[in-house]
Formats: sequence, structure tokens, C-alpha cells
Amino acid sequence: MFPLFLTAMIIVTKPNATEDQIEHIVDRIKEWGLHAEVSRGALRVVIGVVGPEDTIREKPLAAIPGVESVTPVLKPYKLVAHEFRQTASLIDIGGVVFGGPQVVVISGPCSVEGREQIISIAKDVKKAGGRMLRGGAFKPRTSPYTFQGLGVDGLKLLAEAREATGLPVITEIMDTKDLEVIEQYADCLQVGARNMQNFALLKEVGRSKLPVMLKRGMSATIKDLLMSAEYILSEGNFNVMLCERGIRTFETYTRNTLDLNAIPVLKRETHLPVIVDPTHGIGIREHVPAMALAAIAAGADGLMVEVHNSPELAKSDGDQALLPDEFEDLVKRVRAVAEAVGRSV
Amino acid sequence: MFPLFLTAMIIVTKPNATEDQIEHIVDRIKEWGLHAEVSRGALRVVIGVVGPEDTIREKPLAAIPGVESVTPVLKPYKLVAHEFRQTASLIDIGGVVFGGPQVVVISGPCSVEGREQIISIAKDVKKAGGRMLRGGAFKPRTSPYTFQGLGVDGLKLLAEAREATGLPVITEIMDTKDLEVIEQYADCLQVGARNMQNFALLKEVGRSKLPVMLKRGMSATIKDLLMSAEYILSEGNFNVMLCERGIRTFETYTRNTLDLNAIPVLKRETHLPVIVDPTHGIGIREHVPAMALAAIAAGADGLMVEVHNSPELAKSDGDQALLPDEFEDLVKRVRAVAEAVGRSV
Amino acid sequence: MFPLFLTAMIIVTKPNATEDQIEHIVDRIKEWGLHAEVSRGALRVVIGVVGPEDTIREKPLAAIPGVESVTPVLKPYKLVAHEFRQTASLIDIGGVVFGGPQVVVISGPCSVEGREQIISIAKDVKKAGGRMLRGGAFKPRTSPYTFQGLGVDGLKLLAEAREATGLPVITEIMDTKDLEVIEQYADCLQVGARNMQNFALLKEVGRSKLPVMLKRGMSATIKDLLMSAEYILSEGNFNVMLCERGIRTFETYTRNTLDLNAIPVLKRETHLPVIVDPTHGIGIREHVPAMALAAIAAGADGLMVEVHNSPELAKSDGDQALLPDEFEDLVKRVRAVAEAVGRSV
Amino acid sequence: MFPLFLTAMIIVTKPNATEDQIEHIVDRIKEWGLHAEVSRGALRVVIGVVGPEDTIREKPLAAIPGVESVTPVLKPYKLVAHEFRQTASLIDIGGVVFGGPQVVVISGPCSVEGREQIISIAKDVKKAGGRMLRGGAFKPRTSPYTFQGLGVDGLKLLAEAREATGLPVITEIMDTKDLEVIEQYADCLQVGARNMQNFALLKEVGRSKLPVMLKRGMSATIKDLLMSAEYILSEGNFNVMLCERGIRTFETYTRNTLDLNAIPVLKRETHLPVIVDPTHGIGIREHVPAMALAAIAAGADGLMVEVHNSPELAKSDGDQALLPDEFEDLVKRVRAVAEAVGRSV
Repeated sequence: MFPLFLTAMIIVTKPNATEDQIEHIVDRIKEWGLHAEVSRGALRVVIGVVGPEDTIREKPLAAIPGVESVTPVLKPYKLVAHEFRQTASLIDIGGVVFGGPQVVVISGPCSVEGREQIISIAKDVKKAGGRMLRGGAFKPRTSPYTFQGLGVDGLKLLAEAREATGLPVITEIMDTKDLEVIEQYADCLQVGARNMQNFALLKEVGRSKLPVMLKRGMSATIKDLLMSAEYILSEGNFNVMLCERGIRTFETYTRNTLDLNAIPVLKRETHLPVIVDPTHGIGIREHVPAMALAAIAAGADGLMVEVHNSPELAKSDGDQALLPDEFEDLVKRVRAVAEAVGRSV
Repeated sequence: MFPLFLTAMIIVTKPNATEDQIEHIVDRIKEWGLHAEVSRGALRVVIGVVGPEDTIREKPLAAIPGVESVTPVLKPYKLVAHEFRQTASLIDIGGVVFGGPQVVVISGPCSVEGREQIISIAKDVKKAGGRMLRGGAFKPRTSPYTFQGLGVDGLKLLAEAREATGLPVITEIMDTKDLEVIEQYADCLQVGARNMQNFALLKEVGRSKLPVMLKRGMSATIKDLLMSAEYILSEGNFNVMLCERGIRTFETYTRNTLDLNAIPVLKRETHLPVIVDPTHGIGIREHVPAMALAAIAAGADGLMVEVHNSPELAKSDGDQALLPDEFEDLVKRVRAVAEAVGRSV
Repeated sequence: MFPLFLTAMIIVTKPNATEDQIEHIVDRIKEWGLHAEVSRGALRVVIGVVGPEDTIREKPLAAIPGVESVTPVLKPYKLVAHEFRQTASLIDIGGVVFGGPQVVVISGPCSVEGREQIISIAKDVKKAGGRMLRGGAFKPRTSPYTFQGLGVDGLKLLAEAREATGLPVITEIMDTKDLEVIEQYADCLQVGARNMQNFALLKEVGRSKLPVMLKRGMSATIKDLLMSAEYILSEGNFNVMLCERGIRTFETYTRNTLDLNAIPVLKRETHLPVIVDPTHGIGIREHVPAMALAAIAAGADGLMVEVHNSPELAKSDGDQALLPDEFEDLVKRVRAVAEAVGRSV
Repeated sequence: MFPLFLTAMIIVTKPNATEDQIEHIVDRIKEWGLHAEVSRGALRVVIGVVGPEDTIREKPLAAIPGVESVTPVLKPYKLVAHEFRQTASLIDIGGVVFGGPQVVVISGPCSVEGREQIISIAKDVKKAGGRMLRGGAFKPRTSPYTFQGLGVDGLKLLAEAREATGLPVITEIMDTKDLEVIEQYADCLQVGARNMQNFALLKEVGRSKLPVMLKRGMSATIKDLLMSAEYILSEGNFNVMLCERGIRTFETYTRNTLDLNAIPVLKRETHLPVIVDPTHGIGIREHVPAMALAAIAAGADGLMVEVHNSPELAKSDGDQALLPDEFEDLVKRVRAVAEAVGRSV
């Protein structure tokens, strides 16, 4: 179905590996239908293994006696890779196009808290230049004793806010059971950082007709993120956007370490659009704008920024949301930087 | 004076906070029914906030103008804490007791691959002194192109292996949809590291009649692990065991960094049993025994160790599984160390 | 000499702390001339400790029996803090001013390798718009078997390059013994990431007449960086620039994780100029420009970028240096982004 | 076939690399006297490069146009490697032998604070079964405003304590300038974690007649630690011990994350003795014993544990030092675990 992708592994033997062991390694490799290339050094033998990746990946090469290390030299993902699709993927969500020359700003509150709150904020977002509305109905919270979201009622309010403003809406899915109901109300699914390797969920959204924004897990490498996206594409859903939202490091001043290095790396590795969430990334309201501007300068295709009209009274993450007028000011500054790097908002 | 589970937060104001702002902060705190204690320094004001934790946790203190930082000084978890239950929780699974003076060794293959494989390994585990059988039926794999487990057929084979040996069985749950079928066949649920903050799943297993082993996420702090356990207990299921299985650090020589520091810390913080998985923790077969012995010396209540009778042919994680005779030797050495620290196997 | 800075610590007692222990804690605090504020909860007692920071920092509060935790609530640094100096420090090095409205680009090769190399590159740097020349004479290399720099001969060549171009020069100091000779030839000292907590060296450069660029250590928090700068200022040298150059995380795709979050945080915490080194930060030549532009958008006062006229033949770090024409192109793009955020180059 | 210490690198070309580029890569490799092995895949070419390590390490392979990645497959260190010396190195310091069947416990206060303090503690250490005395005279402190050690007076007091007890003494060197004076008084040099990559200092202690204990840096990989040890051995000093003392991770409950995984890995990679410092490693007094026992079970050759007779009054690190009777109890428990793993104390 998909083109064959060559993979290679480099096996290094232990210094005391016997001739019998080396022969056994080579035999195994050949038995599995792979190609082996042997180079002998004074202390060790280096064996290159080449073959179709689906075969090579399955095989426990390091378990063969006499093997010291096994090093992959090619990438484990294919559908998400630029080698598979040379041009950038454009993802159209209700007329808003991600991945093209225009930078898209998504905004809204952390949680949908009530009709007045979400509609008022949606209008503020639209007025300021935001193009898509975010809002959580099912909330992943670290503590079981905090606000867990309005559930289906929250989804209905999001749909009302879309009618009131024309903005398409994105909301987080946390459980495979909720897919059907979310599909009725939302325009785009969000898979959160804590579920980035919830493979049951990835497969389920891979079968959805809605596009998916996949957020990077707190300890996920760029490669892990791409492998999780590969799960969704491999089920047939190619409308996937990747979102950098901060990784966990030893630094404690900021909530997370927003890893902007991921932007140029992802733009080179994959054809999928790359969005940045500076709000969760740095987690400190006054520093959100600096990181948003930096993300655009580094080449991001969009931003997701939290806005609340009354952060002091917010039921979640009030500490990091921008006020509507701060957001309006930010969009202006984002526009200036986008133009400086040859894009628009 | 304060209700049980008092929480406190320390607010520090910005150097340029106005008197009006400070008054507003104190007013907000009082409005929320909390107690405020103000200390004035040369440049900043320090305000202690004390009150019932469910209230205090909800409030976005850092969003109030003039606030520079908010620092919690008491713990956010309660049911899992030693303050809630002074004595160690004993968890009896098919006659095997976790959390008592005896150290329990769980073992088995990464995945159930077939009848002969699982029954043969189960017998090896039992003979060597293992007390519970592990085996994956639903497999969380980083790549969508690798072996994903036998599913319900795997569960049935686990139940057969239990009948053949008398060992209770533990298997991983990855999706809320699978709970019912797993409950039919297994004796203990495992929530994997990648799902440690899959809150929908935590709530679901919190309503199960089966005990749960919760594995620490790769970037989860000890506090995060306890908060996730709190989710399960808060739904009514108190039969929870915690499992340290390695965290993600900058070190690349080992697969993960098995964090044995978590053992004494968890034993002090919580009444729940603490299990250690050295196989995934260090991820290198020849170093698994050293880490297993160290875990017991540090005070772990049990071990989970992967065994395979033919690692070269294993469908997953063959690189790190012990051979049956290596496992038998390990159990002997574990016994010696357990006795040196006043326990038994 | 310096104004008194209030520090506060919050002590939380163990749940089983006795009245005698609590009394002893309070007595100790008073004996040390500090102020104690006691709040009693159901399970624990919270004691606020306030006093002059030099006193409070010395005292092993956590060693007093009955104490569970000690949490500092104010900052441990003073001379580097914005509270000490409200306005940005301007540092003039041979007529080039750091910390003002103009963004400064420093550039040059990793190592000085010979007269022709350094003079040719210096001319390229100047022509493209670089304002200061970098070049290593004493090289910190991970392996003892690689090129260790030209030493004093390298310093002399740097001075020649300055004469040829008018660019002031910066070079790394690795040993207190070398200060005198480096002072003869260079205009600015660099303390490298691996020596950020070499306190003997920090004190020595704190007594130098030359300005110092202090690079952030690979595992140094922002607070650690500020404390190391505090060492230099406390010896009397206030001409210090801070340089973010990437931290060590679990990510392996990039050489380091350039932490741009540090820029807005440092600009808020300290009056010292903040420089960013995207070359070592991301460590991949083709991605250096994206990170350089992002750094400027985030508010950096300057950049340090490696350039080499023949990277294939470079004796160190050839893999990440830009070619002169790539550098010239970068400076143009930096200018556009600087202007978009209200600055110039 | 190849000279001792063969190194290999695997080059993978970019998907769009031209035939000319591939030819140029191979030409360069041959020009440098190295061997190139070319394998062609559908999208990329894989080139194995083999040759003498000193040559191969110098060359900027990744800087050649058309190269996508360069992966080393053999180790960069040699003198420290087990391939260089098959048997364990025994290091005799004043009659105390490190690296043999007997586990050695080093102990003493963080800092030498006065004659009575150091002599009294030294006697306690000896009585409890400690074999070597530690104590800092030059102290690396994060803040310039805290106690910096007694300097040469501290060294003299250490020497007095040695005379009083017969215990050899170890103390930290922070500056190349201090080597001569420390050599007069101490029996073993300690290079601290913050100076693990202070290469000027490593070279200097490599020329000393005293043995060296090299502590692992907070963000140093195991490979980095071995490379730093290689610096010392390459200058002629083969009496080097490695000390694991905790790495920096995202976990904040413990001061550092003591990485016991490093013990079996180091014992396999190198012939040098491996010591563990649980005091700084976990940084919480009550948990030091658990980590000390675990270190011995994992195969450590020795321990370094801080003891103070009056932690509340200690001038540094009082929070984590054991009391003399706690230390005495610990040595007994260490003995039991050492015997369980076939060693003695």
C-alpha cells in the first residue's frame, strides 16, 4: 500500500564475542530476510543490517548472544515524513487554513464555564483577530478535587459560540467513549499532552472525520511526537496538526520549558502544520507574548493562546490567561513579526 | 482549629504593588472564606493564606493584580497520605499479600504470544519463586507498525496459565472500553506509564472491583504519581499499588533512569505498597539484577521482572527479558538481600 | 554597604511534632535574631521566619527536629536583581553598547586556528554587520585527544584581527592562572557553560577590569545563573552579560535545548544584558537562523553566532558554524525582526 | 586488521543528496586516510566510516554538504575502558584499598569548622567503622554570601584529625592554584560535581601524585564522566575513583536524583572503583540510609556519607548530615547487605 522504506541498524558485537556467536548473528539476520554487512575490527565486529523497516523493527537484535549494541540509523516514521509528502499539508477547518503562508491564531478560555462567559470571550477573540475558538468541556486535571468541566453541556455552548461568531471550535477529547458526541459539536479534536501516548485514543481519532491537533507530551521527544502522529495517519486521518506546548525539564521558574527548537526541526521532518501554545508552555501570563512572538519568528504555522475576561474568577488556569485587550495587543505584535519573516496573520 | 486537611499558600507581592492592590488581594481571600495573614517587608508583602483545601485549590491566586508568586506549603493529596492511614495498606490478590513483611516477585513475558509460551513461562516463574504472573494482551507500542497484542485471546491464555500454576495474573488496561472484559479474566489491573495521567481511565479503574497497579509516568514527579493514585482512591478503590519504572532524563546509556529515590520517599508519604520494575527501568538485561537487588535494599515491597524463554524470538522487549534460569538465580539473590534488611521473599 | 533585603522562609512541622519540638524551633529562630510567626492547623504547624537574608540563609532550619519542610519565599540574589537597579545596565565594550535599544551580533569561529583564518573571518563578520569578534584560544573540549586551542598565540592573533577590523574581541577564560595574559589581549572575558559554577574562577573575573559574558551551565536553573553572576558583581565587577546557550534535557534530536523562556524571565529579574547563542543552543547549522530570529523576537539584547569560512576543515564545531554568506543573510533577517519588535541592529 | 581502538561512524545522506555530493563525501573520507563503506537505499545512502579514533574524532563529517546525520558506533574513551585493563583497578590510599572485595565507607562533615569539631567527628567516624575522613576546606557554595571554608587552616586541621585517628583524608580542590598546598596535607583529592568539566583542573590533578575522586556533574552523562576521567588518566595519573552523587532531573521532592543505574553500567565499562554519595544524592537525612544500602546492593565499591555531631549548628549542609549514632547504625546495616551480595565492610 505504502512505498517500501529501507531501514538500517548497526550491530556492534562484544569484545569477547566468539566466531560462533558472530556466525549465529549473521544467520539470524539472513533467516529474517535481511541483508548483513560485516566489518571486522581488532576488538569488535560491526554488522550493518539493511531491509524493509516493518521486518527490521520487529526483530530483537539486541537479544542475540554476543551483541553489545544496536543503533538505528534511519527514521522509524514514514507517513508523517517529508520523504512521503514533499509539500506542506494544508488543513482547512471551516475555511481557516493551517500550514499555508498565513499564521493562524487560536484562542479562548481554558474551560467553558457558562454561556455568557464563552460567547463573550468568543466575540473578543474574533474582534482581536483570532480565527478559531478553543475551550475545554472535558478537563484533564491533576487533582480529582478540582473542576472537571461541563461535559456535553460545554460542547453545546461551544457550538452556540460558533454560531454567534462564525469561528470554528476545537476541544479536547479524553476518552474513546466521547468521540461520537464531540464529533456532533466540534470542528477539530485536541489530544492533550497527557494522552499523547494513549494509543487507544490515537487509533480512535485516526478513524474520525474531524481533524486532530496533537499536543506534545511533557517528556516526549520530537521523534515520539512524530510516532504518535504516525498512529493517527496510519488509521487514515491525514488532517493532523502538531502542537509544541512545553516539555518538562529541571527548570522550576517557568511552568514548563517551551521548546521552540522543535519548530524548525518539525518543519524539516514533517509536512504537517506546527502550532505553538505559549500559554501552557511558559505558564506565566506576562511572559506569554514574548514566547508567542518568538514562535512566529522561528517559523510556527499558528498559535494557541488562552484568553479569559476575568482571570481572577476562572475555574482553571486563570493564572496564565491573557485579558482580551492584552490579547488584542498581542495579535498586532504577532502580525508585525509575521510580516518581518515573510508571512501574514 | 482548622478542619482536617488544612492547606496553606504563601503569596508574595510584587515590589511595586500598591496599597490598593494589597487590600484587593486580602479582600478576595476573605470573600472566598479563607484566612489571610499579612507580613510587611521593606520591598514586598508576604501574605499567608490558610483554609480548607478544596476551596483553596480552586482559586487563581496568582491571577490577582500585584501578586508575584504563590507557593503551596502543604500537600495536595489526602486519601493516599500517611496522615489519612497511619499503617501500611495490605493488598491481598488471590492469597498473595503486598505491603507486608514479605517481598513479592511478579514475573512473566512482556506480551502473551501463544498458549505454549505463556504456560511454559508461568511454570518457570512459579518454580523459581515468583508469586504473580504478568503478561500483556493489549500492548501500548510506540510504533503503530509493531505487534499490538493478542487482545481478548491473550486474556484467555492468561487465565489458562493461572489455572495451570495457581499464580494470580496482572495485565494492562489501555482503554476504558476494555474494563469489563479484563475484569472477567485478570486478578489485577495495570495502568501503564503512558496512561498515568489518562484521567478518564483512572476514574474507570477507580470503580473496578479489581486491585490496580499504577505505574509512574516517564516525566511524572512523585507528587504527580500520588495525585493520580488519589484519583483511583477517590472513586472508592483503595487497593492500589504504586510502581516505579524509570523516569526520562538526559542519560542515554540506559533506557530510562530507574529512580530508586522514590522508594523511601513513597514509603514515607503513603500507606500504599511500592513495587519496582527494574526491567523497563534500566532496560538492559545484564543490569536488571543489580537494580532489582538495590530496589529491595532501598525498601521496595515487590519487584516486577520480565522473563522470556526465548528472548531472541520475543515479539516485544526481547532485549531486556531475563532467561528463566537467570530469573531463578535472581530470586535467590533477592532473598539474601531481603533477609539482610529484615524481610523475606 | 548594600541595602538590607528581607528574606522569608516557611517552616512546616511534621504531623507528629511535639509541643516541645515546636517550642525548640521557635526558640532557635529567636536565638538567631529572626522573627517567627506561628499558625496552628489540625495536623501541622506552619511557622513563618522573617529576617535579614545573610543571617537566614546560613541557618540549617531543616535540621531542627520536628521540621518537615522549609520553603524559601524570597529570592537569594540581590546585586543582579531589578530591585537593586531599576534600569537596564548598559555595558560599553570598545564603543559597542550592550543592553540598549540596539541588538548586537557577536560572531567568529569556534577556535582561532591561524592568522589567515581569523583575520579573514573577522573581515567577513564586520562586513556582514557583526559588531564583536569571538574566537577561542583556550578550548574546553570533552575529549583530551582533540584540539585544545593555540593558547597565548591565539590571543595574539585575536588582537591582530581587532587591529585589522576595529572589532573588539571576546575569548574564553578556563583557568584563574590565565587571567593576566588574557587581560593583555582581549576586550571581554567569556566564562563557559562548564565553568558557570567554578566559583574560584568567578571570584577571579569579579576582580578583573574587563567585562564578563557568563554562559548558563547545561543544568543550571535561571536562579543558579543569577547566583553565579552575583558572585562576579559581589567582587566589584558590575559589567556582566548573561548568555543563554541551551540546557540539557531528554531531547536528543538537537544538541541542547535552547531555552528561550529564559529571555523574558531574565529581562524581568535582572538589569544585566541577555545574549543568546543559538549555535551551541540547537547545534544544527541549518536551524541556527530560526533560533536566532526567535531570540530577538523574545527580547534578547544580542546574539553570539559561530561563523567559519571552511567548516569542513574547522578544528572544532565545524558542524554547526554558518558560512560567511549565510551569516550575512542572517543579519539582514535579524534586522527585520528587530525592527518589528521596536529595536535596531 | 584495524589498529587497536578502532572507531566507526555511520553517515546517512540527505534524501536529495546528489551523486556529486556522495562522491565528495567519499573522497574526503579517503583523503583523511579513513575507510568508507557505501550502501545504497531507495532514498538515502548509508556510508560506514572506519579508522583510527584520534583521526576520526577530529573530522567534521557532519559539515560536508549532503550529509544528514553522523552516528558514532564505538566509544570515545580508551584508558578508562575495560578493554584497556581487564581487571579492576585497586587504589591503595594510606592502606585503605578501594576497588577490591571490601566496601569502604568514607565519612565526615561537609566543612571543617574548627579543631574540636573535626577531631571529634573523625573519632566518631573511626569508631563506627568509617575508613577515610572527608571534610571541605575550600567550599563551592552557590551563594557568595555563605560560608566559604577555612582554607589552608582547614587543611591543617584535617591533617591533625588524621594524626589523631589514623584515617587518611580526602578534601576538595577547586582551583589549580591550590594543588601544591593541598598535596602537603591531604591523601586524596576530590574534584566536585561543579568542576567535573573544568578541564584545566582535570589536567592539573592528572599530574598530581595523589589519587583523585571525580564526582559526576549534575548534568553529566555516564559517558561524560568517563571522558573527564580519561583527561586525568591521559596525564599519567591512573589512581582515579568515580563518584555518583545525583543528577538533575525534573523531580523536586529530592535534592537530586541519585542515579544508581550508573553503578552496574560503570562497573561494566571501566576498571576504576565506583563510590556513591547518598547524602548529596537524595539530600534528605532520613532517606540517606535507604540509598546507601541500595548502592551497596547494586555493586558500589564504597560510600561517602556526611556526618555531623551537631547538624543544627553546622555551617553548611546541616540538613542532610547523619548524627554519629545514626551513622554507626548505618554501617552495621551496610555490613549486612554487603555480606548478602558476597562482599564485606
